[in-house]
Amino acid sequence: MQRDGGDCRRVPVTFASTPRPPYVAVIFTSLQTGDVEGYAETSARMEELAAAQPGYLGIESARDSEGFGITVSYWVDAQAAREWKTVAEHRSAQERGRNQWYAMYRVRIATVERDYSDG
Amino acid sequence: MQRDGGDCRRVPVTFASTPRPPYVAVIFTSLQTGDVEGYAETSARMEELAAAQPGYLGIESARDSEGFGITVSYWVDAQAAREWKTVAEHRSAQERGRNQWYAMYRVRIATVERDYSDG
Repeated sequence: MQRDGGDCRRVPVTFASTPRPPYVAVIFTSLQTGDVEGYAETSARMEELAAAQPGYLGIESARDSEGFGITVSYWVDAQAAREWKTVAEHRSAQERGRNQWYAMYRVRIATVERDYSDG
Repeated sequence: MQRDGGDCRRVPVTFASTPRPPYVAVIFTSLQTGDVEGYAETSARMEELAAAQPGYLGIESARDSEGFGITVSYWVDAQAAREWKTVAEHRSAQERGRNQWYAMYRVRIATVERDYSDG
């Protein structure tokens, strides 16, 4: 499911179409600093780049009006998730995130074992 | 880390203080219908009730201005997460969620194997 959120959205509102478990979820929780210069462009570019990686399954993302956000990216396995982390352009974005955009963040790598949905 | 978001917030802006992995993450992704009558109260009550359950480790939640949200609750193990799902008052809230608040949702149960943070 995808909604048209207009140009101002950093990330399309999407439920990821993941396959039957198991697969890997990378849960990225972050609090923005307030300095969002360059963030929207980089975020959009990272979405695009991630989607082109081997083993990419999808991404879901929400950020509230106070700058607290959760992004979950889904991967076929832990190896695919690790490789995405090391892509040069992504590493550079991560560094900028640490230095400029995020006051704090946390990353958790998890194996999804079960899922269900409604709607 | 916790920020004071004022009374209007449904959920405090919080990074969950989870222990060293492994532990369980329940990733709840949802899109609101637009009918939020009763939602804030129930959401706050469910936070409170979850925090009182055996095996509860914490919760992180973000919802954007278009009603797309991600809530991740953390539990010591899959059994604790399952038991929370069956708590009577929570079951009643889940039913109301399906009927009134959520156009669509997805739940994924995952085991966190690794984490790291900054900030």
